[in-house]
Amino acid sequence: MKLLIASLLASVTLTAAQAADIVATGDLGLVVERADGSLLLVDRSDRAAIGRIEGLGDLSHASLVYSPDERFAYVFGRDGGLSKVDIVEQAVVARVIQAGNSIGGAISDDGALVAVSNYDPGGVRIFDADTLEMVADIPTGSKTIGLVDAPGRRFVFTMWDSGETWIADLSGDTPEIKKIPDMGANPYDALITSDGRTYITGLFGEDGMTALDLWQDAPEPIRVLPGYGRGAEELPVYKMPHLEGWALAGGEFVLPAVKHHQVLWVDATTLQETGRTETYGQPVFAMARPDGRHVWVNFAHPLNDTIQVIDTLTKQVVHEFKPGPAVLHMEFSPRGNEVWVSVRDAGKVMIYDTASFEKLGEIDAASPSGIFFTARAHRTGL
Amino acid sequence: MKLLIASLLASVTLTAAQAADIVATGDLGLVVERADGSLLLVDRSDRAAIGRIEGLGDLSHASLVYSPDERFAYVFGRDGGLSKVDIVEQAVVARVIQAGNSIGGAISDDGALVAVSNYDPGGVRIFDADTLEMVADIPTGSKTIGLVDAPGRRFVFTMWDSGETWIADLSGDTPEIKKIPDMGANPYDALITSDGRTYITGLFGEDGMTALDLWQDAPEPIRVLPGYGRGAEELPVYKMPHLEGWALAGGEFVLPAVKHHQVLWVDATTLQETGRTETYGQPVFAMARPDGRHVWVNFAHPLNDTIQVIDTLTKQVVHEFKPGPAVLHMEFSPRGNEVWVSVRDAGKVMIYDTASFEKLGEIDAASPSGIFFTARAHRTGL
Repeated sequence: MKLLIASLLASVTLTAAQAADIVATGDLGLVVERADGSLLLVDRSDRAAIGRIEGLGDLSHASLVYSPDERFAYVFGRDGGLSKVDIVEQAVVARVIQAGNSIGGAISDDGALVAVSNYDPGGVRIFDADTLEMVADIPTGSKTIGLVDAPGRRFVFTMWDSGETWIADLSGDTPEIKKIPDMGANPYDALITSDGRTYITGLFGEDGMTALDLWQDAPEPIRVLPGYGRGAEELPVYKMPHLEGWALAGGEFVLPAVKHHQVLWVDATTLQETGRTETYGQPVFAMARPDGRHVWVNFAHPLNDTIQVIDTLTKQVVHEFKPGPAVLHMEFSPRGNEVWVSVRDAGKVMIYDTASFEKLGEIDAASPSGIFFTARAHRTGL
Repeated sequence: MKLLIASLLASVTLTAAQAADIVATGDLGLVVERADGSLLLVDRSDRAAIGRIEGLGDLSHASLVYSPDERFAYVFGRDGGLSKVDIVEQAVVARVIQAGNSIGGAISDDGALVAVSNYDPGGVRIFDADTLEMVADIPTGSKTIGLVDAPGRRFVFTMWDSGETWIADLSGDTPEIKKIPDMGANPYDALITSDGRTYITGLFGEDGMTALDLWQDAPEPIRVLPGYGRGAEELPVYKMPHLEGWALAGGEFVLPAVKHHQVLWVDATTLQETGRTETYGQPVFAMARPDGRHVWVNFAHPLNDTIQVIDTLTKQVVHEFKPGPAVLHMEFSPRGNEVWVSVRDAGKVMIYDTASFEKLGEIDAASPSGIFFTARAHRTGL
């Protein structure tokens, strides 16, 4: 009987954790709490926080990706920390300091490899997604930006200093690297289309952007919008725009301009400019709602209390509102019916209906910045 | 003490189920076992079956959709049965017989409503996703096909007999229905693009297809490939092709021809034909790999032992192989690195690497047909 009770007790100690585990992971997400180095676990369906994971170091410019099963998040901290978080157990299960200053990461299409791009020392390091053991070290001699995953166990990334893009193929035993020079002066960020075909770098050192068609055996740099701001007065840049939030909207790319209060529209096939929309401030994120009909834009300091919504057909602003001080990030539900907005200095994540613009709820969070829903696990280039 | 033990036992009875529940749901899937009316629960990461759910009635032409949290599947049986399955508990949690003969279903973008299209009585019925209570009945006086979800809590469906497409908007208190006549003779299936903008019906009663731009306030039928087979000898149709597996491949639609051994390529912007590829048999599914670089095609009886893979750039067949007798369905992992193939008469699901075409594994299944990964929860129109 004593034995039986012991065995029962052992079971019971697991039960509390397990009762909480009967949540499927498809509608969860993590919000970066930058001041505290913690992650807030949120449930989209309940529009609520359901846990907090602490001890993640410096999250002042953090991003993360998910494992294919939507159970683990790989968190890339500004301090070079790479952490593996189990969102079912709500715990950090592995953590390495892999560099001195890192700038983002990606996960291979099969979920087996996690890559991190670093400023110091400049390059890309690749880790086993299971154990976080380093499996490849790719020094580049440059600050390395715009790291994305591409189909076929590939990673693509670009050098700020040398203006080269490298394509690293990890499908064999050793990484095969293809180098593409002449991408332009000081690429500062990049994006890959959701089909993994087109890689576009934004340039800080010159007006314009550069695209690569990754379906070609030897991709050549294609200039996009060369000199788009020439003649216009350049405005000071308080915050570099992000390209990662980009998406295809009705056959056009929508991109935040640098040094101009505009978003730029580019035909996705011809890569020719199709229009510009004047905006309230310097855009930081210009994010297409998943259906592409609307583009939501937030802005750099000191105009970062405002969001504008642009209609893709007319390219006109159709809605403008002020969620609160320091709107840092927006994340759409995967099918686009809601958007979640980080309002850092209000200490809130605000939730809106994207059709009616009605506010649906809010969640307390400590200096929230990036919001990452688990549905990202199933997409290329996020 | 007695009380304590009772309480312990109550906890223990939950434990076995809960231990199994510490699987995240992002990499799971269901395989329809048509002969037995059961569903095989599979784990993509393990390439293995992890459970079986029985008692689902006639699954001879079944499909299913997932709740936003990837926990529940809504299963549409040929016999009019609508079943709600909990894949965490591996149990049928609700079931209604909602019509005499049904042909597919969809789930609204917010996950709140499940819609079923019926042959008998013809029309669409809409159910509360939580309880399966009927919340709207939309008789159409026709066999109803091509039911898809669209952004903004809308469903779109088409009438075989009258050639009308209806757009039902469920965002308000009562359904608002917009009717578009003259879609063509005997529409037999339809698709919606993943951005929810373009709806395309295949026609059985005439050569060609008809598209609608759902971003327009009053969408007008647009003829696509009118008379594409005129002059060519029509071949007998053993199995109607499916359009649901369609996807955009590098800016083009790829569509199985009806009554011809061809797939058709259509520019996604202009809706003009851009090419044809001769195939081994009458295509049933022409499915773009998620990156769009390849299209995988299976065929109607008696040529249904074969798969052809077509390169999107060259429109040439680059690979052909015979997985076994009666290849019924193919499902890509969401990022496209693997494809899972139902080979009914081999009693197997076969798993292939989509880059090397190497076989990675196989799973026993009883007369498998449709394969549905949970990642579908996050996509429009599946």
